[in-house]
Order: sequence, then structure tokens, then C-alpha cells
Amino acid sequence: MINVSIIGATGYVGVELMRLLHEHPEVEIKDLVSKSSAGQLLIDIYPQFRGSKLNDQKLIALKDFKAEASDLIFTALPHGVSQDIVAELYGKGPKIIDLSGDFRYQDVDIYEEWYGFEHRHPELVKEAVYGLVELNRSKIKNANLVANPGCYVTASLLALLPLINFKKADPYSIIIDAKSGVSGAGRSLKENLLFTETHNSMKAYSPGVHRHGSEIEYILNQYLKGSYTENKIYDSKVTVDSSNLEKEKNRVEVLFTPHLVPIKRGILATIYLDLKEASSAAEILEIYQQAYNQEEFVQVLADKLPEIKNIAGSNFAQIGFKYDQRTNKIIIVSVIDNMLKGAAGQAVQNMNLIFGFAENIGLKSTALFP
Amino acid sequence: MINVSIIGATGYVGVELMRLLHEHPEVEIKDLVSKSSAGQLLIDIYPQFRGSKLNDQKLIALKDFKAEASDLIFTALPHGVSQDIVAELYGKGPKIIDLSGDFRYQDVDIYEEWYGFEHRHPELVKEAVYGLVELNRSKIKNANLVANPGCYVTASLLALLPLINFKKADPYSIIIDAKSGVSGAGRSLKENLLFTETHNSMKAYSPGVHRHGSEIEYILNQYLKGSYTENKIYDSKVTVDSSNLEKEKNRVEVLFTPHLVPIKRGILATIYLDLKEASSAAEILEIYQQAYNQEEFVQVLADKLPEIKNIAGSNFAQIGFKYDQRTNKIIIVSVIDNMLKGAAGQAVQNMNLIFGFAENIGLKSTALFP
Amino acid sequence: MINVSIIGATGYVGVELMRLLHEHPEVEIKDLVSKSSAGQLLIDIYPQFRGSKLNDQKLIALKDFKAEASDLIFTALPHGVSQDIVAELYGKGPKIIDLSGDFRYQDVDIYEEWYGFEHRHPELVKEAVYGLVELNRSKIKNANLVANPGCYVTASLLALLPLINFKKADPYSIIIDAKSGVSGAGRSLKENLLFTETHNSMKAYSPGVHRHGSEIEYILNQYLKGSYTENKIYDSKVTVDSSNLEKEKNRVEVLFTPHLVPIKRGILATIYLDLKEASSAAEILEIYQQAYNQEEFVQVLADKLPEIKNIAGSNFAQIGFKYDQRTNKIIIVSVIDNMLKGAAGQAVQNMNLIFGFAENIGLKSTALFP
Amino acid sequence: MINVSIIGATGYVGVELMRLLHEHPEVEIKDLVSKSSAGQLLIDIYPQFRGSKLNDQKLIALKDFKAEASDLIFTALPHGVSQDIVAELYGKGPKIIDLSGDFRYQDVDIYEEWYGFEHRHPELVKEAVYGLVELNRSKIKNANLVANPGCYVTASLLALLPLINFKKADPYSIIIDAKSGVSGAGRSLKENLLFTETHNSMKAYSPGVHRHGSEIEYILNQYLKGSYTENKIYDSKVTVDSSNLEKEKNRVEVLFTPHLVPIKRGILATIYLDLKEASSAAEILEIYQQAYNQEEFVQVLADKLPEIKNIAGSNFAQIGFKYDQRTNKIIIVSVIDNMLKGAAGQAVQNMNLIFGFAENIGLKSTALFP
Repeated sequence: MINVSIIGATGYVGVELMRLLHEHPEVEIKDLVSKSSAGQLLIDIYPQFRGSKLNDQKLIALKDFKAEASDLIFTALPHGVSQDIVAELYGKGPKIIDLSGDFRYQDVDIYEEWYGFEHRHPELVKEAVYGLVELNRSKIKNANLVANPGCYVTASLLALLPLINFKKADPYSIIIDAKSGVSGAGRSLKENLLFTETHNSMKAYSPGVHRHGSEIEYILNQYLKGSYTENKIYDSKVTVDSSNLEKEKNRVEVLFTPHLVPIKRGILATIYLDLKEASSAAEILEIYQQAYNQEEFVQVLADKLPEIKNIAGSNFAQIGFKYDQRTNKIIIVSVIDNMLKGAAGQAVQNMNLIFGFAENIGLKSTALFP
Repeated sequence: MINVSIIGATGYVGVELMRLLHEHPEVEIKDLVSKSSAGQLLIDIYPQFRGSKLNDQKLIALKDFKAEASDLIFTALPHGVSQDIVAELYGKGPKIIDLSGDFRYQDVDIYEEWYGFEHRHPELVKEAVYGLVELNRSKIKNANLVANPGCYVTASLLALLPLINFKKADPYSIIIDAKSGVSGAGRSLKENLLFTETHNSMKAYSPGVHRHGSEIEYILNQYLKGSYTENKIYDSKVTVDSSNLEKEKNRVEVLFTPHLVPIKRGILATIYLDLKEASSAAEILEIYQQAYNQEEFVQVLADKLPEIKNIAGSNFAQIGFKYDQRTNKIIIVSVIDNMLKGAAGQAVQNMNLIFGFAENIGLKSTALFP
Repeated sequence: MINVSIIGATGYVGVELMRLLHEHPEVEIKDLVSKSSAGQLLIDIYPQFRGSKLNDQKLIALKDFKAEASDLIFTALPHGVSQDIVAELYGKGPKIIDLSGDFRYQDVDIYEEWYGFEHRHPELVKEAVYGLVELNRSKIKNANLVANPGCYVTASLLALLPLINFKKADPYSIIIDAKSGVSGAGRSLKENLLFTETHNSMKAYSPGVHRHGSEIEYILNQYLKGSYTENKIYDSKVTVDSSNLEKEKNRVEVLFTPHLVPIKRGILATIYLDLKEASSAAEILEIYQQAYNQEEFVQVLADKLPEIKNIAGSNFAQIGFKYDQRTNKIIIVSVIDNMLKGAAGQAVQNMNLIFGFAENIGLKSTALFP
Repeated sequence: MINVSIIGATGYVGVELMRLLHEHPEVEIKDLVSKSSAGQLLIDIYPQFRGSKLNDQKLIALKDFKAEASDLIFTALPHGVSQDIVAELYGKGPKIIDLSGDFRYQDVDIYEEWYGFEHRHPELVKEAVYGLVELNRSKIKNANLVANPGCYVTASLLALLPLINFKKADPYSIIIDAKSGVSGAGRSLKENLLFTETHNSMKAYSPGVHRHGSEIEYILNQYLKGSYTENKIYDSKVTVDSSNLEKEKNRVEVLFTPHLVPIKRGILATIYLDLKEASSAAEILEIYQQAYNQEEFVQVLADKLPEIKNIAGSNFAQIGFKYDQRTNKIIIVSVIDNMLKGAAGQAVQNMNLIFGFAENIGLKSTALFP
């Protein structure tokens, strides 16, 4: 049994963490920190917790929070804000799992280029371990600070990592066309997030300039440069074309275009990958199956494409693909629930790893359907 | 650990039962019976179970089902069909929880009037115990056959039962205006259930002639006639005006109008109750609080009205009300998830009672929000 | 050809007026006044007007608006705000159609009671003509100031007016359970109007205390007191029980409960009316048909209930009903598009009347389906 | 005034044609032919036409249809079925606008390859004129048989045609990631089109093998081979690199992946186009503006991306783009209403051309928003 606190408890990621954690058999929820709602009862803001273990829980202000009493802190805060609070908490005892973008890049200059401001705690970046479980499981187990991946990033990396070393693949020009439900935008009061502006509509936004595009490209290149070679999750399973591994320069280029779609939860990433020579569905399927045979939360579909409804409400990713012989491209479709495998679920998976719990505890729910 | 089977596993209620049961720590899923999909893998029809305990489960035909191997059978079948299958299974050993309308009326003639055909197993009706847990907990514990209540009925009865004996209430003309999500209509191929016909639309249907209206009225009258007096859940808590209890004739008349609303899950019942003399919000609140203080799954809101989003995905009911002094009426708003407290969740609650498990095991999830 | 201006052009009602008016063959759009967007091109805020006659139209500030250049002004402003601007414009030449609640009550004290603040222009209230066309057509033709009815009010009055003099009806306790799409709440930045808070959810709000409930009750009583007797639209058609008409006191009491439903447009009002003696479907149908036989925009359904999808995007109301012999009540279901017959469409209908155009010009569109 | 009939009147495209045509000032609707509903009143199937000019219109069977009485026939039928009926009607007098895929390919063998069966009327294919107005206006004016383009095809071609001759573009590997509302699937009773299966979900389907992908590729190649050179709509406006025009072989290769999104109407196509050398936003914008400056129904956005809500309910296409310098690709986003510019609206535009009416008559409506 561990004591767990959440900073930023009343945002959508915070509320999803509470939903998962208050049922987790190894977790005691300690403090819920909220700037906007300190002093209030949680159930007055989120009435769904009436009758649950959190029925009487109050939200507190950061200044009243004693980090030492927790074994683990989740920080669910905007980027830029998060780094300062993590810096304040780091070293006081508890492990930290940060759900912002602040600690996902080992290269501070790339972070600064894409986020548009200076990183004030570059020393902490070195401590941070990238929290994509399937990529980095062994390092996460010993991490003091985990940088939980972005939602679009998780959907995309799970689809791309198995193929990135595939000798027939041409990773120079990966196109990711991703579609997200509205919860990904958080609980912010913006006109374009009103029901009347979003329902029955659809749009692309930030093509080529969304930060998650840079995160995907960054991690793929880190991977190809060997940053994750200790972990053989992927490497051991595919035929690595070592001539591919020029560690000096970027090997992968990603063009990423996100879209807003009128659903609540779920990301569907459609990924286009060129091949340099002809392949086959069987060959590609084998690569995926080798990569994910042992992974509970990544399900590879042999002969159909995944749909949001089959994963929304669960921590599962589902991946399907089509090899198009005519154009010699692979179309990969990857779906996750952005609140779960794309945020809070993956964070709990990281927590389970760090504290030695079974990786799937608290995360076994299947999709809520219909 | 008990062995549980489901007949009618691939309908929406069946799939919801599977979702709940495969995570239930005291349950082993034994057989999944499906007429339409016998022989297929469950995950080929419902891919959300990939990676779960049900990953390799096959659906079987009824003729291959051995009732004796189960401790409990859920029958999730259309009315009319269910009674024959229950009759075939009854007495072979397993307890049965039936989710159809076939065993909800102790008076076969009322059933026949509203369902429009003969009941072929009136003898079994006598064995059936009405499965509204909050009303009938003690009898359910010893039942061999439970008649799980209708979804609209559950939302309405939980709101009305506490007030039905309130001496200031006039139960002669209760109006229930209920709104349901589309999952309540099941997975049937009807033109009016197509997305294009339902989305961005809304309609009333079957005003005054929906079977659930008769079920609500029937149970309320049964209750007033003393059929549930052994169970003091409600009676002990309110000031009963015994002059009200003319056991010879109906005391309650219900006009019920359901509506179809473009959401997936959830019933919101708005109920209008006349008062014979002035009351107050405080007086009414006390009646509700006394009725439900000890009930985990029924949450009474003191000063706000419930919303679907706070219960969808959970087994909780939430009830709020407004006393309108000007017209001397009470407006009660009651919300449940029709798939959970309105069907599969309540059925699992019944199972927990019968087998002596804690009533909330497998049912603690809070609403999936956002 | 008349010159028409809109004050409050960029709210949802304003944009709907523009949509209708820029295609109206007798209308030239003169000025579009907007507080928040003065100086901007309309198409930069509402890109749907690209390529239309309004492609180059700029929004202007109220201070730059010359009332005299217009033949008609629509004021689409919040209540409280509207009365002052109408007072400023009134008498400068143009006719005014006001879409706020400020001029709908001839009795200022009732307005003040329900709106909670003082009316600053009671003298103008006397000039205002209530703009429910089917009720008040002849007076509207000569009006200088029209008070366009509320959206819920229009749906409810069209359903109730034909029956309010029906001698078998008991108007003392009318219950209106109304459901509205989200556009009715306007383009305001409120957390509860975010997509994530509204989609897949539903709620009741303001039961018994919503202003539209008072407006419905007020107009019905005005009608029974003879305020609309010059206009025989309804009176000439139904058997009036004159003993019903006690002009001294209110005859009608309305309990009104609105609900928010996740659709964009549309109001569905389910209305419950007690009868004092038995009636029949045929008798009631005849009353409706007599009332609306000559009305293009009110369609009476003989044997089915209306649905939102059949009127959303059109100026039509559709009304159906069920006579419930068992409880001796009538259940009436009335649907309109809140943006059209419930606001901008009805305002254009009023404009057509005032300027002697055919009443249906610019309003013939049928529902946009699917 | 012309007499117009519709074969296949009760499908979604048929009903959209009726919506447009019954308000068209130059059109008299003659016969509505329906296989499934012959003999019924239109308003009993589509109650939205109550109170309109079509209030008393009956649906008739094909055998009772006299082609000679019409000046124009729209055939809104499934492919395969349509060709036989068109063959039967052709030459009897009326012009025909066919909305199926049967006459869109001048090369019958390509049609047969993608549609999977033999074309039974290859002689008629030669008579058919491809009905993308912006591409083929002059030929359409004299056509006896118009092949109205597919919905995905219209959205994609309008975005691609201006760039296909751009000398910096590499048309060898165009990727089109398209997202469609559910109305595109028609009114067919399929389980995966139920509200409960579609709402809050999303999926890709038929990647690389959808017929509309082949239609896009086919028309682009036809265009590059000179099939549309008489019409200088595009050619005259862009700098054509004639070395590009190898008429012997295909120049363009398209990978097309459609997605189903839970909205009613609207297609959003996100198109990825490689460049062979660096370009600039200004250069690309100029190409688009030259192509569409004179086109009312195609709006080019200079500095923002289009959204479905700005065109749903209208015949307008809106196109925006982003030049991504980093990867030297253009991302083009094109939106249309699949029922209007993608089907019935474009068909009416074709009708206006053929009969010499102003091209925009009956099509001026802007988007229905909110």
C-alpha cells in the first residue's frame, strides 16, 4: 500500500487519475491539490465520486501540501508550469510521474525550440525517464522522475517502433494523420471547444507544427541512435539493418497533422510509411506480433482495422495495418483512449512498474461499450 | 469462486455482463451462449476483449450448454423467448437471474395484458423474486429465480418509492417523463436506430402504453398492498399513513412517456408528483435521506440536480428534486446508466447478494468522465 | 426591397438572421452591429458567408450605426441590455423586432418579478406587440415594435393555445417537460457548455423557475382574459366555454421544466394536460386541425409523434398528441427548431407580415436531413 | 420551367435532391420513383415535406413512370443497378444526371476492375460527361448524360487539380486521408451504421482499395493526358510544365484511406503532396487563387484551415493548405458537404448548366450553423 497524491487534480487528466487510483488495491489517495478549487469537496466539483472512497475528500492548495507524506506524486499540470513544481518537489522523497511535456526531451534545445520558451530546470531533465512502458520498461522501474508520453505520441510510437528498424522501411518521410476526441484539449474555456462549435463538425489543426509531432520524431531518432538499446523489447525482435543506424544524424522525419473530431475520448492515428522494396502482409504482421506478443496492453489485429469503440474506457492500444502493394506503402491504424493509455492509464502502468506491482493492476477494464 | 454462464451473451446486456463479470474476483465465466454467433471466438465479435481473460473464449449454442456446470445463469434474452429457456433451465441446479420482462409480474394477467400474449409458465412466476435490490434485498438473498427490473423502472422506482407513502403525496396521477440513450433499444437492426436517423434528433414514443409504465405502476401498487413489507428498507423510514393502504385496489396511477435521446447510455427520468398539502424541500430531503442513507448505489443530492455524465459507466443512481411551492408539486430527477443499474449492474448486485459476496464487488467503478 | 440591420449580429440568433436575410429576395442587409467584433470582416468570424452576398460585409460598432437608414432593425441582444438599445432606436423611423425577453410582458411587474430587475422603459412595453404570428397576426401587421416570443414559449403555446379553451380541459395544472438543443444557450463561454461536459450527457435545469415558464403562463392567461380576442385565429375555431373566462384571475397554471440535450438545434416539448371528462383522439384532432388548417408553418400530425429531425433547419412546427384514456390526460408533443420558429425564423415571419410580403418568403426550406 | 423526375427518390441522395428541387424556381417536380415505397405519400416517409409543395406527392413504381414527360431525370441508385435503368431511359427525350459510379470512367476496363463486375452498357459510357463542374463546365452544358462525381472524389479533386500541373509537385505518391460523416453510407440497414456502433467511435476502412481512390486517380490522369484540355479552367491558370505530360502512362498515383466519423454530413480530406523542390505558401496560394477566383462554390482560405461546420448544409467547398518547409510537403485540407457539393448539390449545379439557368440558382444557402 502506497500513499499517492495528485497535483492538478481537477483537470481531466487529474480526474481520470482519481478514477483509476481510488479503486487501485495497492493505493491510498493522500492529497488532491488544486489551484482553482482548494478548500472544496471533490464531490461538489465531480459528483461522480459520491458514494465512493473519495466521498469526503477535500481539495487542498499547493502551499498546504506536504510532499514527504506521499510515496508518489502525479503532476497533471500544463507544460511550463509543471517543471517548476516538479523541481520544487524533486528530492523530497516521493517518486514523481509528470504528465506534462516538460521532461520528455533529453535535449533541452529541442524542447525549447518546440515549446517556445526556456527550460528552467535542465539538470532535472537528465533524471527523467521516458515513460512509454513498452519501450523503456527496465529504466522506468528505477526512475525517480518519469516523463509520461503525450497522447498522440503514444498512439504513434506504438505503431511505428516495431517497423522503424525494418530494413525495407523508409523512415525519412513518415506521415501521421491523427484524429482525437475533444477531451484531449482539456477542460479549458475556449470558444472552439463549445458543444455548438464542435458537434457535427471536424477540423485539422497545427499541421506540421504540433509539439507531439516533434516528440514522436525525437523519440524515434533517440531509439535509432541507441538510447533505448539496453531495453531489447523491440530490438531483439526485429531484423535490425545496422547500416540504418547512423547515430550522427536524424534518421526519421515525421509530418504530423492532428484533427479534432466530435467524440469524447479516443485517438486514431493513421500512419503512412513508404517501403523501399516490396514486402507482404505476412512479413509485417510477424514484426508486429514479435514486438507485442508478450505485451498485454498492445493488441495486434491480424486481419481487421481497429476502432475507437473497442478501446475507449480501457488502457489497451489496438493496432492494425494494410500493406498496399500497388503503392508499396504500409497504412497503419493505431487506436488508444487518450485519457488512459494516452495519459492517466499509462501513468498508472508506470506507477505499477516503479512499485513492483503487477503491471496491469487497476487497468484491466475493457472498453465501455456500447 | 462461482461458475457463471450467460445465455444471450452477444446482445448489449450480455456484453455488459461479460465486461463486469470477467473482472469480478469471485466469478469464473463458464459458458457464453449465443444463437447468432455460436462457434465464433468472442473477440471476433467484440474485439474489446482482446488481451483480457476472455481472449480465447468461444461462444456456444444452447444445445451444447450444460446447465449443471454453472452455479448461476444470467438469461439476457427477449421477453417471450426468455420464459421458455428459463423454464428449461430452472431446477437443474443453478440459480437464474433473468433480465427480460417475463417474470416481473406476480399477476400473470397483468403481464399478459401489457405484453400481449399468454404466459406459458405461470407456475414459475410464483418462484420469481423481483430484483430491485433496495426494495427487496432480503428476499433476493434466498431466491432461485430473480426477475431483474426494467431500466426505466429502476430509475423511476428508486425516485418514487420513498415518497409513495408520504402522507402529503397524491399518487393518483404520477407523471414520468423519461429520456433514454439509444443502447436501451438493444443491438437490433431497425432503420430508426441508424446513426443518421438518431443523431441530432430526439423523439417521444409509446406515450402511456410502454410496458415499463405498467411495471412501475404494478410494483408501486404491490408495495402499497404490502407485498414488500417484510423488507423494511423503505417502510421503516417514512411516516406511513396507514389509511392509505387499501389493499383491495390500486392506489397509484402512472402516466409514463419515454423519449429517445442521442446519447449512448443513461436514463434521466423527470417525475411530477402532486401534493395534497404544502410541504418543504427540507421535509422531502429528509424522506430521501432516510431511505438511502445506508444505500451505496443510490445517492441523494441535497441542492442540485443530477446529470447523466455523473453516472454513465457506473452502477450508481443519483436523485435530486425540486419542491415547487407555487404549484405544490415535486419534480424529481433520477438518473442511472441503463446498462448498469438499469440492467447488468443490478443483475451483478443481485448475484452478489445471492452468493453472499459484498454487494459492491465488481461494481465500484465511478462514471467514465469525460 | 427594404433595408434591414441587425444589432447583435454575431451571436447565434444574429448569425441565423443573417443566414435567412441575405437570401431573402425583398431584403437588403444594411448594417451588422457587433460589440465584440466591430471593425472585422464578417467572414473572418463566420467563414460560412464566404462567397455569399455578405462576403465583404464589415461589422460596425453601435456608435457608428445610423438607425434612419434602415426600414427595420432586429435587436438580438441579452435581456436587460436590449431594452435600453430599443429605447434609443425607437421612434427614429425603423420598425423594430426585438428578440429578447424585454418586451414580451404587458405587465411590467410580472416581468420584473421573473427577470429580477426593474424595467427601465415601461412606456415602450405598451407599444410592443407580441410576435407569435399564429396568435397575433393582425396586430403584428401594424406594429412598430414586435416582441419576438421565447423559443420554449413558441413550442409550448402552439401546442396549448388550441386546447386552452377546450371545455373538457383542466388548465389549472399544465406540466411542460421541454428538451432543448445546446444552441439555445447561445455562444457563451461557460464550462457546462463545453463539448466534453455536454456530449453524451443530459440534465434538467431550473425546474419551475425558468422565465419561459412564466411567459407561457402569462400569454395563456392573457389570451383567456381576452387580450387576443380581436384575432379570431384560435377563438373562431374552437368551442369556447365562456364560463371559463373569468377575466379577474389567472385561469392557467404552468409547471415548466427545461432540459439540456446534446443536439445542436431543436426543442421538443412534451406537455401533459388533464381532462375533466372523457374525450377522444378524434375530438382533439379536430380542434387542432381547425386551429391550424390554414397555417403553413404549424403541421398537425394525425397519427404519429413528431421528431426533431423533421423540422431542424426549417421554420415549421410539428405537433402530435396522444389521448390517454386510462388516465384521462392528453400528452402533446410539439417540436420546433429553436433558431428558426423559436427565434430568427419567426422574426422573419414577423418582418414579412409588417412589410406586406408573403408570409413564407425566405422561410420555405424544409428540414436539413440527414 | 422544366419538369424533373427522380429515380431512387427515398434514399438519402434522393431526399436531398427533393429538398433542393422543390424550392428551385425553374423546376417542377414531376415524378418520384421509389422501389420500396411506391404507392405511399412522400410525407409518410419523410414528414419534413409536410406543408411544402410536395405535401401531396405520391411515390410511384418504375413501371408506371413515363420518361417522356420529363425534361430531366436524376438517377440516384446503387451502382450496377443504375446502368441498366439509365440504358432504358437514355434516348427517350430527357437528359439524365446519374449519381452512381456507373458512368464515371471512360475506360470500362478500369471500372470493371474496381467495381468487380462487367459493365453492361459500354456504348453509353462514351456518351457520359464527367460532372465535376469546375473541371468540365463547357462539356456539361451540352451533355445528354452526366456522370455526377463521387463525394470523396469531389473533395479531393478540387484540392488536387490546381496543383497537379505545378512543376514543383511530385504527383507520384499522393496520400489522401479522408474523413466522412455517416450519411455518406446511405440509408442501409447495417449493424455498423447503428447509432450505438458509430457514436463516440471512429474507424478507417478500405485503405487503398476504396473505389473513390481509383476515381480520383483516374480523373487526375485523364486530366494530365489532356482529356479536359478544351476546358481551360485549370490549365490556363497555372504554369504547365509540359514535360510532365507523358500521355502514354499514368502520371499520378493516389493512396486513399477513408474514415467514418460520427457526424451526419461532411467530408474532410487531408491530402499530402510531396514537392520536388522548395516552394512557399505565397506561391501555392497564388495557384489556388488563380484556379478558383471566378468560382463561386470553391472558396480558398488564405491563412486558416477549413472546418466542416462552415460548409455543412451548403454547396460550398472550402480549401486551405499548409506548406511544410521542414519536410517540403503540402498539406491540403478540403471540406464539402457530401450530400450537396458531394452529391445532390453538384447534380443541381449540373442541371443549371445544362438548362442555361444561373449556375447558383437553388444553391445559395450558406452552412446551417450552429
